[in-house]
Amino acid sequence: MKEIYRYVDEHQKEYLELLRKFLKQPSISTSGVGMSEMVLLLKNTLKDMSFSVEEIKTDGYPIIYGVLSGKGKRTLSFYNHYDVQPVDPIDEWEVGPFSGTIKNGMIISRGSADNKGQLLSRLCAIDAYQKVYGNLPINIKVIYEGEEEIGSPHLADFRQLYPDKLATDGIVWEGGERETNGPAHITLGVKGLLYVELRVRTANIDAHSCNAPIWPNAVWRMVWVLNTLKNEKDEVLIEGFYDSVKPLSNKDKYHLKNIPYDEEEILSKMGMKGFINNVTGEQLVEKYLYTPTCNICGIKGGYVEKGSKTVLPAYAIAKLDFRLVPEMKGEQIIKLLRKHLDKHGFSDVEIITIASQPTYRTNYDNPLVNAAIAASKEVYRFPPVVYPTDPGTMGAYHFCNDTGIPCVMYGVSNMFSQIHAPNENIYVEDYILGIKMSASVIDKFARHY
Amino acid sequence: MKEIYRYVDEHQKEYLELLRKFLKQPSISTSGVGMSEMVLLLKNTLKDMSFSVEEIKTDGYPIIYGVLSGKGKRTLSFYNHYDVQPVDPIDEWEVGPFSGTIKNGMIISRGSADNKGQLLSRLCAIDAYQKVYGNLPINIKVIYEGEEEIGSPHLADFRQLYPDKLATDGIVWEGGERETNGPAHITLGVKGLLYVELRVRTANIDAHSCNAPIWPNAVWRMVWVLNTLKNEKDEVLIEGFYDSVKPLSNKDKYHLKNIPYDEEEILSKMGMKGFINNVTGEQLVEKYLYTPTCNICGIKGGYVEKGSKTVLPAYAIAKLDFRLVPEMKGEQIIKLLRKHLDKHGFSDVEIITIASQPTYRTNYDNPLVNAAIAASKEVYRFPPVVYPTDPGTMGAYHFCNDTGIPCVMYGVSNMFSQIHAPNENIYVEDYILGIKMSASVIDKFARHY
Repeated sequence: MKEIYRYVDEHQKEYLELLRKFLKQPSISTSGVGMSEMVLLLKNTLKDMSFSVEEIKTDGYPIIYGVLSGKGKRTLSFYNHYDVQPVDPIDEWEVGPFSGTIKNGMIISRGSADNKGQLLSRLCAIDAYQKVYGNLPINIKVIYEGEEEIGSPHLADFRQLYPDKLATDGIVWEGGERETNGPAHITLGVKGLLYVELRVRTANIDAHSCNAPIWPNAVWRMVWVLNTLKNEKDEVLIEGFYDSVKPLSNKDKYHLKNIPYDEEEILSKMGMKGFINNVTGEQLVEKYLYTPTCNICGIKGGYVEKGSKTVLPAYAIAKLDFRLVPEMKGEQIIKLLRKHLDKHGFSDVEIITIASQPTYRTNYDNPLVNAAIAASKEVYRFPPVVYPTDPGTMGAYHFCNDTGIPCVMYGVSNMFSQIHAPNENIYVEDYILGIKMSASVIDKFARHY
Repeated sequence: MKEIYRYVDEHQKEYLELLRKFLKQPSISTSGVGMSEMVLLLKNTLKDMSFSVEEIKTDGYPIIYGVLSGKGKRTLSFYNHYDVQPVDPIDEWEVGPFSGTIKNGMIISRGSADNKGQLLSRLCAIDAYQKVYGNLPINIKVIYEGEEEIGSPHLADFRQLYPDKLATDGIVWEGGERETNGPAHITLGVKGLLYVELRVRTANIDAHSCNAPIWPNAVWRMVWVLNTLKNEKDEVLIEGFYDSVKPLSNKDKYHLKNIPYDEEEILSKMGMKGFINNVTGEQLVEKYLYTPTCNICGIKGGYVEKGSKTVLPAYAIAKLDFRLVPEMKGEQIIKLLRKHLDKHGFSDVEIITIASQPTYRTNYDNPLVNAAIAASKEVYRFPPVVYPTDPGTMGAYHFCNDTGIPCVMYGVSNMFSQIHAPNENIYVEDYILGIKMSASVIDKFARHY
């Protein structure tokens, strides 16, 4: 590996320039700006690196699929996306959002962290491997989506239509973070998500609030509905909600101890007085990663502008998201919720399902995980922080849920990378380390770690 | 009185034309459209009817004050307003909103019911009285406000600055309704109003909902706050809230029996399944008029647009109005609410007072009430429906709260007059009856009924 690490160091400039070229090309899937140019640049880059490339059409933006054969039998896939978020609020950018600016050791541009820096660190690793050794020790597949920032509407189709293209021995997903000057994070799964909207209607139209003594109020009803779902102790009161939550394994407990969480910095940055139930330490991280949630994302009903309007609201909505842990299923939670509402006299309350995404976890003892841990130790000189699951939900479940394909996430960003926000950035150092990391993962995965 | 009734019938056309002239003159206080022209028309009309007129300047639109001396010692005042609501949504008007259209026995125009029809029915009564008898049996004062539709910001100043102009033996307030082809309503008071906004903040900014297992959520907190305020049985749980509510008197009970409430029509029109607690009949009307409320006018927090955003809201607001019955005081309710929130662990919840208006009730046994009841029987040929209080809150408290001045409300509109809405209207017949009614009230008030 030393030859590769040296090669990467010597070709830093070239790999940085390639990233800047990608960053200077806007590719906003929400508006369509620059998407076709980006597709062309991406395909040409892959071809330059000897990939055989296919542009897979969808009803939206294409999936760019590339294959590169190696010596060994194993196949490793990389999932990334070539689209980026819009740049609003533009006034808050210190540099042009598509300038590819490098300043104070940072690469500042829309897409640097999410997801072009991640994408290119992996491609450059493949390039370096070829340049140094002439060929790769395993087969590589890359799957580059152009619609991640608009909800991946065609990823499920891809799995359905192209089982052969999906077939692989492991996937490295989108990206990941590194602690400042410290270890890398390796994440082995995602939480599931159930997103619903509750709707309460008590009359055709809003009325004058002088009728409040005798006419029903939709907002009051919504308050009473929600109050039955979770209490102030943060206990979800839906019968059966926690039934399929499994206790932590010894491995879970082992890794938990190593997961950092800077409580004071987070409380001070967010202006919060404390965490729910004043939990701290290891228990806090356990709650963060291992408990399912019932969260109100939004609520609205009646008059909410400035000043006063004396109105009796006829309609109220609340948006809830449930983050699920294995083995919870979205469909099952909807059933439990319906039963709960009916039982509490709220059978008139409508439940609209907006999204349902399964959980996914890769086993700890897995050749890909082993390779990633070993590579991480070697490249970052620290044992990695292993997250059994991301606290959020990512598209990895599309490919990995019930296919048995192992999946890991790691990458070149950090907790201050301002993903989706102005001045999105990564460190130059982390980009270069990321190239080495992927090269090392390929190497170790080939050696059957 | 027969001469006056005959005179009014003979001069119907003239009185209708005067109303149409007022209706054709826009006077929207929100935008200022037509206000100065309206002031001029109003002053000239008063002068034509022999009033001595004063234009009392305010920081907004002037109060037009007129005095007309009569034979007797008693003074009767009329409060009305010359401003109207805006006309939006303009597309829903079947006629021009300032066309003064008369169609199928109805006068359709912005201001017909609220408040020019009411204002002119009273002025025309005074005119008819003078034309028939040469002079009035009592002194008349008229107080015409130009800012009722924007919250009467200068009415309290008027009371403060001009105690002599306010001095009177009774006031006829703004307006009132008549049952379709039936009795008139005579209303003797208003409920008080306390309007507050509750604010909950749990962090500086919204966060990703993946933090929901451990970070506080402002909307959940608001739900729990509100849930402590009122239960599903419609009982307000703020300690001491009902302490000053007085039981109904025998007179209250007597009048209660005569107050109509078409439950089926209201349920069907509003698309409601039933009234709160399924109360019906006399109990329903009692609850409507005699109980104080804690009503949520609006609630908002987090993401409430289409689709999904997985967010953890840091801020939530709720707007509440409390309708108060005698002897409840807004300041006292705020204190009780603060104490309640503190007691329940919600001392972080902010209470912003937006409006506080006292209750007001005129005694049943009062020369002005007696005169209005007698006049109503004579003119409408039915005993009136006597409301001890309006279910809402009107500016009458400005002049009558703790001054001892009796106040009644009656007028020319009906429950389908579309006040504040497109196609606002009154019946021509009700306008003419309204003129006779006010003439009769003057007559009977002079005779010490």
